Amino acid sequence: MYPQGSRIGILGGGQLAKFLSIAASKLGYRTHIFTNQKDSPAIAVSESYTIASYLNYAALKNFSNSVDLVTYEFENIPSETLDFLVQQLPIYPDRKALLVSQDRMTEKKFLNSLGIETVDFASVNSLGDYNDAISKIGYPAILKTRTLGYDGKGQIHINKQTKETKIFDHLEIGPCILERKVQFDKEISVIICRSNNGTVMGFDPGENVHSNGILRETTVPAKISNDLKLSAISVAGRLVNSLNYVGVMGVEFFVLKSKRLLVNEIAPRVHNSGHWTQNGCMIDQFEQHIRAITDMQLGDGSRHANVRMINLIGDDINHLGEKTMGSSYIYGKQKSTPERKMGHINYVTQYSV
Amino acid sequence: MYPQGSRIGILGGGQLAKFLSIAASKLGYRTHIFTNQKDSPAIAVSESYTIASYLNYAALKNFSNSVDLVTYEFENIPSETLDFLVQQLPIYPDRKALLVSQDRMTEKKFLNSLGIETVDFASVNSLGDYNDAISKIGYPAILKTRTLGYDGKGQIHINKQTKETKIFDHLEIGPCILERKVQFDKEISVIICRSNNGTVMGFDPGENVHSNGILRETTVPAKISNDLKLSAISVAGRLVNSLNYVGVMGVEFFVLKSKRLLVNEIAPRVHNSGHWTQNGCMIDQFEQHIRAITDMQLGDGSRHANVRMINLIGDDINHLGEKTMGSSYIYGKQKSTPERKMGHINYVTQYSV
Repeated sequence: MYPQGSRIGILGGGQLAKFLSIAASKLGYRTHIFTNQKDSPAIAVSESYTIASYLNYAALKNFSNSVDLVTYEFENIPSETLDFLVQQLPIYPDRKALLVSQDRMTEKKFLNSLGIETVDFASVNSLGDYNDAISKIGYPAILKTRTLGYDGKGQIHINKQTKETKIFDHLEIGPCILERKVQFDKEISVIICRSNNGTVMGFDPGENVHSNGILRETTVPAKISNDLKLSAISVAGRLVNSLNYVGVMGVEFFVLKSKRLLVNEIAPRVHNSGHWTQNGCMIDQFEQHIRAITDMQLGDGSRHANVRMINLIGDDINHLGEKTMGSSYIYGKQKSTPERKMGHINYVTQYSV
Repeated sequence: MYPQGSRIGILGGGQLAKFLSIAASKLGYRTHIFTNQKDSPAIAVSESYTIASYLNYAALKNFSNSVDLVTYEFENIPSETLDFLVQQLPIYPDRKALLVSQDRMTEKKFLNSLGIETVDFASVNSLGDYNDAISKIGYPAILKTRTLGYDGKGQIHINKQTKETKIFDHLEIGPCILERKVQFDKEISVIICRSNNGTVMGFDPGENVHSNGILRETTVPAKISNDLKLSAISVAGRLVNSLNYVGVMGVEFFVLKSKRLLVNEIAPRVHNSGHWTQNGCMIDQFEQHIRAITDMQLGDGSRHANVRMINLIGDDINHLGEKTMGSSYIYGKQKSTPERKMGHINYVTQYSV
């Protein structure tokens, strides 16, 4: 176990880093935020911070000298940054999880190799590939960049009418993956945590509503059968065990009408769809992550309330008025842009479950 | 309502300031800690801080220029500091509450003037006063300095055997108050909050265990009748209303065997005996305080769990081991001295109440 007062470096300075930093401080740890953006909410609740490019090696060197271990709030960290840091000190979750999740193709192949179902997919690097792929996958489909996508970015929806020029333009961005667009009944996610000693705990699945590729709300409990709930947690558990993963992972699923579970994507970090744990569990996803990476015993993450988490996106933040009777989390970002996550509110609809 | 991004200055940098700072950040506010101690846990979770004497006017001037309003985590702030700051910007809770609570004599007279019962007491400035007082109050009694006492400091217990030289030495510290030592059945406290618009909310009373004048643990619910619970909250409500108080106040009571309630002392700030609210309520005492002083609507502070809060005092912090299955709050103080509060743990014994 890392002793109290140990320093945790966090790559990224957004709201996830902010809550990680607060959780670390609650447990007596100190944090150092490394971010390339000035408007980073986590800075205000961290002992120290560095604002620099993720490829500024002098800054990275100072950062690694000032901390005992490193974690991160986003998966699209440049490989060079990780190559450099991993020589100096431990990074949790480790490279393997990042490699799997940074590339949608690698991710799906990895999932399938564990016997975990996903949507049908095919690699697309050229118009030729695309034509092969669409004949195999069929319409409707989604063409996604293999890397760097988040919150619906880097994706186009494909139907019979989609023009070839649009496909061509999208392929210009970089290697892509074509995925079948499935008709699903629900989207759910499991926040799973595994500690260095192999203990695994899964929070109750949440039911998610996305729009334009961005999570709008999560409700617990998800309206699914107990069997399905246990299946989802068990899939997530298999995933983290197979990677010897340390920390929290978000696993998003499609629930088909047939009740089959497909993993949509995984995120090797704390996850927006786990924010309900802040008011629904004694130990939330952020503290659980800090406990896992510092070798502490995991805490009690059982759910004691029904919660509806609503994201405050873009201008929502300016229309809170006086009527927010839930538990509001305002990230403190200075600029609000149309699809930017600015805060969230947890509404507890019932205690004791 | 103070807009998001407003800056709250906090006098004091201990654990109470730490939790206030985190609560402020959750609601989108920024904080600036002003403390005279380097080893101040709140600094790590605040956007900015000043370490200077409370009588350093240049530092106070910079501080007041950098914030929009001021609050505090301790009541023994020098008058000069407040005189200076109050000319620049609003301070919540205001001077009146501080004046009342900084002096045990003023406090008790004020309480009695509202018809609120206290133990019998008498002013003692000299040995002559003392002899008059003890004949009126009787043994056993407690001789306390009127100001600057906390956590049992500045108090001596008096019985028939107590030597006059000991009394004399204590009076050397400054003006004192002699209080009757009552046989009480329980000690309870109410954390009460009043917002600028006059809304008052009281958290459920907690049952406290002190030893050597220091709070060791608080349990909710207190084992008292519902009538007594409502009486305690109503006394606390009368108190904050009579002062037009803004913010959280801790009100400590003795419950006598006869079920009479005596107010022992009041603290015009968030209070150690309210730490259970961090795991027992959706909105805890720290957030409620920030909501009150920033003119936000107060949140839902109803209790949804039975909680036992244990203070980690002195060396306790080094014997946590792996067995803390509660929710631990480690303050992050660098030096542990025998009676110093180093952290606390909330054990939830049951959800839904």
